Amino acid sequence: MSKITETTFRVRYAETDASGVVYHAHYVVWFEHGRGDWFWQQGRDYHRDVEARGYNWPVVELSARYLAPARYGDSVTVKTWVKELKSRELTLAYQIVNAETRQILCEGWTKHFNLDAQWRVVALSKELRELLTKE
Amino acid sequence: MSKITETTFRVRYAETDASGVVYHAHYVVWFEHGRGDWFWQQGRDYHRDVEARGYNWPVVELSARYLAPARYGDSVTVKTWVKELKSRELTLAYQIVNAETRQILCEGWTKHFNLDAQWRVVALSKELRELLTKE
Amino acid sequence: MSKITETTFRVRYAETDASGVVYHAHYVVWFEHGRGDWFWQQGRDYHRDVEARGYNWPVVELSARYLAPARYGDSVTVKTWVKELKSRELTLAYQIVNAETRQILCEGWTKHFNLDAQWRVVALSKELRELLTKE
Amino acid sequence: MSKITETTFRVRYAETDASGVVYHAHYVVWFEHGRGDWFWQQGRDYHRDVEARGYNWPVVELSARYLAPARYGDSVTVKTWVKELKSRELTLAYQIVNAETRQILCEGWTKHFNLDAQWRVVALSKELRELLTKE
Repeated sequence: MSKITETTFRVRYAETDASGVVYHAHYVVWFEHGRGDWFWQQGRDYHRDVEARGYNWPVVELSARYLAPARYGDSVTVKTWVKELKSRELTLAYQIVNAETRQILCEGWTKHFNLDAQWRVVALSKELRELLTKE
Repeated sequence: MSKITETTFRVRYAETDASGVVYHAHYVVWFEHGRGDWFWQQGRDYHRDVEARGYNWPVVELSARYLAPARYGDSVTVKTWVKELKSRELTLAYQIVNAETRQILCEGWTKHFNLDAQWRVVALSKELRELLTKE
Repeated sequence: MSKITETTFRVRYAETDASGVVYHAHYVVWFEHGRGDWFWQQGRDYHRDVEARGYNWPVVELSARYLAPARYGDSVTVKTWVKELKSRELTLAYQIVNAETRQILCEGWTKHFNLDAQWRVVALSKELRELLTKE
Repeated sequence: MSKITETTFRVRYAETDASGVVYHAHYVVWFEHGRGDWFWQQGRDYHRDVEARGYNWPVVELSARYLAPARYGDSVTVKTWVKELKSRELTLAYQIVNAETRQILCEGWTKHFNLDAQWRVVALSKELRELLTKE
């Protein structure tokens, strides 16, 4: 398993809904924020190191389980790691916890294909693979 | 299987991202829009018929597979149906297609618990069950 | 004053917040939806007719006044029209009403510059101007 | 003029749009994030100190000027301060800058009414006023 990063931020009012707690689709955005930060914390950047080289890693599969709600103003922490790396695809996993109580709020993963500039699924180059594995 | 409803709308610029296509979390919002419309098309309303009676049906599990991108201005159709109904939970399924070409863009499902006003998982009353089954 | 279009849709749960009504920034998205539909209803399309020709019309100024709240499931109508057209900029105006009661919920406008592919502010060509004026 | 707080975070991919830069409505969300943080940085909390006492401060007017774009991964800083305090309303102002270059990206303000539990506009109590003025 790869390095696990932690990304902590406060819940915005925009992220809540009329039931009084965070709307479920925002956790999917938080997964993306954790994913971006996994790169940033290691001095890498998805745009500069992947997109600018002509590749992109769209989400092709997504899974989430919701265990407890987050509320406005809560500090939440997204833990992110690379779960699986195949020749042409990668899977990242996430656990979102309340930053104070450490209660688990949500768990999930996203699978991504490695697409080239023509949106064809291609093998990850050595360079791209190192982005995901090199400590 | 239940009635299948179709909900069609145009993609907003707000729903696209820097890769040029729709951001993946918006499909999850579109699932919710399809789910709301499943009720509306049958003269029912989630707020009036579920929440106002003291219940709520939060998403506890979510799954999505992305097959092809949607773009700004595309007409997309969300097909929605009740996939499974248990004593205390329900699962709705979705298929999102391009409204013109009928190409499948995304498929998924959401599982919901039936919570009472104290956020306890309770059995669906006959009244709530009819919302989901009566044609 | 230009043609006024009307765009009607239901409020999504995603658009509400913990105060129980629609979150204010979503009205700004609804302005954009009205703006897009102003073109679509006239057989035009912002991407095909503006962006694909090498121009873009970013929002450079935005104003909104909120008069009454919208709630989950409400049908809302966005009325959209071109308010002002200058050599290098355009202003669209919006009024959002409850589609059933016609109560005014929000009023506002957005000013846009005409940028070329190098993001320079340039005069609107005759072709672009016709998109905005021709009935 | 009140204390000025600074809130810094990274741009999420979710916040970009097909033009390649941040979608304009997200700056309005960033205003709200700056507003929430103005309270948090002073040991106060909008939900606990305003809503839980039976009041709410909805946005009744909004203005924004966009000066330069933000991009995915940029660090942006929202500066927030109380601009004006009247008997029954308050106005907060915002300046959003690129956290590295300090280039100004967006400026704006939001006006809020002080509503009681029946959504009537009422005078700010001494307690609420202190939330906004006490250093």
